[in-house]
Amino acid sequence: MNSAHAKKQDNSVSSPLEELHILMHEDMRAVNAMILDKMQSEVPLIPQLASYLIAAGGKRVRPLLTLSCTALFDGDMTRAHRLAACVEFIHTATLLHDDVVDDSTKRRGKDSANIVFGNEASVLVGDFLFSRAFQLMVEDGSLEVLRILSGASAIIAEGEVLQLSAQNNLETSMDDYLKVIEGKTASLFAAACEVGPVIAEQDSATTKAMRDYGMNIGMAFQIIDDVLDYNSAREKIGKTVGDDFREGKITLPVIIALENASAEEKEFWQRTLANKDQKPEDLKTAQKLISKHNAVEGSLKIAKDFGAKAIQNLENIPKGQLKDILKNLVNFIIEREY
Amino acid sequence: MNSAHAKKQDNSVSSPLEELHILMHEDMRAVNAMILDKMQSEVPLIPQLASYLIAAGGKRVRPLLTLSCTALFDGDMTRAHRLAACVEFIHTATLLHDDVVDDSTKRRGKDSANIVFGNEASVLVGDFLFSRAFQLMVEDGSLEVLRILSGASAIIAEGEVLQLSAQNNLETSMDDYLKVIEGKTASLFAAACEVGPVIAEQDSATTKAMRDYGMNIGMAFQIIDDVLDYNSAREKIGKTVGDDFREGKITLPVIIALENASAEEKEFWQRTLANKDQKPEDLKTAQKLISKHNAVEGSLKIAKDFGAKAIQNLENIPKGQLKDILKNLVNFIIEREY
Repeated sequence: MNSAHAKKQDNSVSSPLEELHILMHEDMRAVNAMILDKMQSEVPLIPQLASYLIAAGGKRVRPLLTLSCTALFDGDMTRAHRLAACVEFIHTATLLHDDVVDDSTKRRGKDSANIVFGNEASVLVGDFLFSRAFQLMVEDGSLEVLRILSGASAIIAEGEVLQLSAQNNLETSMDDYLKVIEGKTASLFAAACEVGPVIAEQDSATTKAMRDYGMNIGMAFQIIDDVLDYNSAREKIGKTVGDDFREGKITLPVIIALENASAEEKEFWQRTLANKDQKPEDLKTAQKLISKHNAVEGSLKIAKDFGAKAIQNLENIPKGQLKDILKNLVNFIIEREY
Repeated sequence: MNSAHAKKQDNSVSSPLEELHILMHEDMRAVNAMILDKMQSEVPLIPQLASYLIAAGGKRVRPLLTLSCTALFDGDMTRAHRLAACVEFIHTATLLHDDVVDDSTKRRGKDSANIVFGNEASVLVGDFLFSRAFQLMVEDGSLEVLRILSGASAIIAEGEVLQLSAQNNLETSMDDYLKVIEGKTASLFAAACEVGPVIAEQDSATTKAMRDYGMNIGMAFQIIDDVLDYNSAREKIGKTVGDDFREGKITLPVIIALENASAEEKEFWQRTLANKDQKPEDLKTAQKLISKHNAVEGSLKIAKDFGAKAIQNLENIPKGQLKDILKNLVNFIIEREY
């Protein structure tokens, strides 16, 4: 591992995500500069809208994974900067389109881009960022990277369409749910991690291990996201709660609560999620039912199973500080409260 | 040129577009099979929606250009089939997104996909087709083709965003308009034509000539489209008229009619296009003003200038039947009434 990346610069950090941000600080700066540069266009609305969303922050988990998984194998960080920007562009494009599809009003604590700039602009600027991501990959010049990221993009879209088809459908099975989140979330985590060893020309077993690591933390990440959407404590830190419920998304806590639901409870879910007939107090009832059936614990158990697999995936990866942080990141993703 | 492509199979054909379709019949069949195969997905809504739009027909001009421009230089037609399918996928994705952005209700004489399947599905299936196009390019394996088509995709999105910014803005200049149509339409025509000589490994002058040919016919094609949108005769053949007017798009006929508009006429355009305050009889008035200021003739003149350039672009291309048809196609695009 590159010594520049091995040196821990701060001992007061509290999470592995922050540790990664500090360790990869210089590289993240290069990625942010690349993002800012490549979202420019002669058409002013494009950088206006893109920077509105990108400046709003977000955890930058995906580009950070690309950087870390390249540094882990001492790969070419200049290539990693460009490809981490690609990954973030693809992610940003999907966020813009998601917010249109879900008719969202908030994103990262601000009015979402579709509210500020309109659905039309969100769709088209998403398309631009997506195309720009491919232009960046072409500049990089690796067909293998292009294969990985075009594959991930197709699978993301498939996952999103599957989610749309499952919406308001109480028959959605655990398998359907897992397929949706593998597509919409885990596939880009997997691709973000796989790009690292590909840049560093690692063997196929190593590349697969890192891809699987990304896939498994992506699954855990999305399950926790779906659990947190029913966690009222989150409102205190300014996050919205109940978005999935309002949109009729059938997520893991609901699937588990439904498994042992009484006839009356089934009627409740039928009315609120399938028939989209919701009253203001319904979210509270949903939270109570999820709690009654230990659906948070049940979801956490499944997230932990994915986490355990992710840690196994790291088994044959060379020892070092970065590996330790990636290991700790697994538990952090599962235990996070935001 | 390949003799299989040189043989004219029917003497009763009436347009160069039909001639191309007949000449490239076998190749178009392969392209259609490729399209059908590659739009498949485990998620049923994807082929349902995609086939709804693709089965509705359309002129298939763009994939036909890729096929013709490959056959013209005796290039590998198997590669051309795949890349023509890519071009059609990119085009289809932009149609799906356009109809969402424009809130369209009709496409190719049927209810548009956003009406039948919803805006959400149209956005996401568009994303899928777009990603699938890139996967197909990766299968082809040419970074040069990837560069051309990712570049075209970014420029299409830029053109669409520029159009959105110019909408309802009477200050839109002729230059703004030309930039919009170059982006949203001509850039994909240019790319569709450029791919041919790239497959056939032609020199850069030839490749540029074919790219420019595509760009120039694309400009002419869109100008004529915009003229036809004010041509009431078209209603007789089941086409809609007045879409651009209703959406407040500032197209060439309007720009020309505005140049010499009286104060009263300017008020009319201001009310109908800028303030979006339209009455049912306003389209007729718009058509009268366009006629009064010879704006159809003025638009045709500009389309013909692009057409003349397109014919010049073919100057150094090897003689043959395909070249003759591509030459005749230029006038057909300008003289078409549908």
